[in-house]
Amino acid sequence: MVAVAVEPTHVIGVDLGGTKILAGVLDREGRVGRQTQRTTPVSSTADLLAALEETVGELLEPGGIAALGFGIPGTIDQGRGRVEVAPNLPLAEFDFREWMEKRFGLPVGMDNDANAAAIAEWAIGAGRGTRHMVMLTLGTGVGGGLILDGRPYRGSVGAAGELGHIVIQHDGPPCQGVCTGRGHLESLASGTAAGKAARELLGPDASAHDLVREAQAGNAAAASALAEIGRKLGSGIGSLVNIFNPELVVIGGGFAAAGDLVLDPAREVMRREALQPARDLVRIVPAVLGSEAGLVGAGLVGFEALDS
Amino acid sequence: MVAVAVEPTHVIGVDLGGTKILAGVLDREGRVGRQTQRTTPVSSTADLLAALEETVGELLEPGGIAALGFGIPGTIDQGRGRVEVAPNLPLAEFDFREWMEKRFGLPVGMDNDANAAAIAEWAIGAGRGTRHMVMLTLGTGVGGGLILDGRPYRGSVGAAGELGHIVIQHDGPPCQGVCTGRGHLESLASGTAAGKAARELLGPDASAHDLVREAQAGNAAAASALAEIGRKLGSGIGSLVNIFNPELVVIGGGFAAAGDLVLDPAREVMRREALQPARDLVRIVPAVLGSEAGLVGAGLVGFEALDS
Repeated sequence: MVAVAVEPTHVIGVDLGGTKILAGVLDREGRVGRQTQRTTPVSSTADLLAALEETVGELLEPGGIAALGFGIPGTIDQGRGRVEVAPNLPLAEFDFREWMEKRFGLPVGMDNDANAAAIAEWAIGAGRGTRHMVMLTLGTGVGGGLILDGRPYRGSVGAAGELGHIVIQHDGPPCQGVCTGRGHLESLASGTAAGKAARELLGPDASAHDLVREAQAGNAAAASALAEIGRKLGSGIGSLVNIFNPELVVIGGGFAAAGDLVLDPAREVMRREALQPARDLVRIVPAVLGSEAGLVGAGLVGFEALDS
Repeated sequence: MVAVAVEPTHVIGVDLGGTKILAGVLDREGRVGRQTQRTTPVSSTADLLAALEETVGELLEPGGIAALGFGIPGTIDQGRGRVEVAPNLPLAEFDFREWMEKRFGLPVGMDNDANAAAIAEWAIGAGRGTRHMVMLTLGTGVGGGLILDGRPYRGSVGAAGELGHIVIQHDGPPCQGVCTGRGHLESLASGTAAGKAARELLGPDASAHDLVREAQAGNAAAASALAEIGRKLGSGIGSLVNIFNPELVVIGGGFAAAGDLVLDPAREVMRREALQPARDLVRIVPAVLGSEAGLVGAGLVGFEALDS
């Protein structure tokens, strides 16, 4: 007779965004069951933690949840389970993992939101089956995630994969937010860069979305502005191909909606910048999971905490 | 009674350079015993292979050598054991590993020369005890090597770590050799860049070495030229710190002789470009093994082949 232990088989994944908290119950295959969401309170750390507590509480099933996983838009110290800084949230130098573990008595995994999205695309999305994958998330900023030798790479304390902060123009224009750098991918090839081009071309109220729509409708100047952003993205991707020799570069985030208007020029410059044989082996593809990637990735990070 | 098998405990490491072949017998701790060297014949592939065969043959000890390891200045396809391209050698699209395995009947490891140097610095040099180390080799070109999560990282086919070919100036000046890229670290922060500055400042026969000597002797213009190269190096290192969150960045190669004339400005710009907490955790240090790094690394790659 074989004794089979009945063990909880699901986790709760929480995608903590700057505007909303999206959470759900997931199985090991990344399938999402019950979900809940609410507006992110940014008034204070206490309010934010209370909202997270309620969110998790809503989804908890007695005996059914094995772990929690969180995707957080900020810099994480994995060793200490600490949020160092999260520019759009009232969380700084906060021992997040310890707090959650104490509150719920469950293993807690946490990661940067862009890492979580990369893990999701790798496990069940565009990067399924690869062992070497780089993901760029193009939004207001540019996030990054790395799968190297078949596992997520996080660096010495968990702060790796800040791919939006690679320099593609030495001494170039200042970066965004807390970053003191210059000429970073984030300032030159993000939705923010497209928004700036939109305002210059289409007027003070135009957005990155308008620029993409105009280009799709045949506006040559709009297409050219997006192509220039794509070419800069291509310099960044070329660097990453030379560094990682990845099988795949996955492009996600809201600004990825620009599609081949940005990706074709990016591919062209990547081919100029990258060396053989890495150049011919890599594919640059759009993400497939859309806005659910963060939630799925957070859940998978929860399973990682359970298994470690 | 315990049977103890007597097994060979040493490997032969071969540092195949564009001008000389340096080879030696090594133990697992990276200690080098007997050595031999000869000029690299570049007249033909056959001549080069004959020289390698003689070099290894000289060091072979019947029953005493367990494997061979080679460091090669070119792009390697690890999966196929193939040299794709080696700009300064008559080796292209050559199935090097298979050839050597057949010739000597021993396991054969091979790697890019910069990877080999990084492995050596990690195992017994400046990076001893670290798990996340980036190495840059500044010479005529700029090579790179990566130790990630406690092991060498080579990418999907072994072409990773081409850190000299990261873009730090989008649409910048053309790169060197077979590379079609623009504004790469290799063209802006190498010994070649210093040689160019030397000729502009000190006359048509001046070298990078002269520029360093002049700066050390108090020539402000020479020091300023080196500082500018160091600042560009700092943009590259800043990118690498944001990507990898490494404990250590090791700077080796002939041009590293410029020391803090280059490294201090590099550290300053790195601190501007890199995010917290990675920025404060990383150290930028000179390599310690000097010209022996390639030989030691080649030997350690031989042990890797033996153990795999």
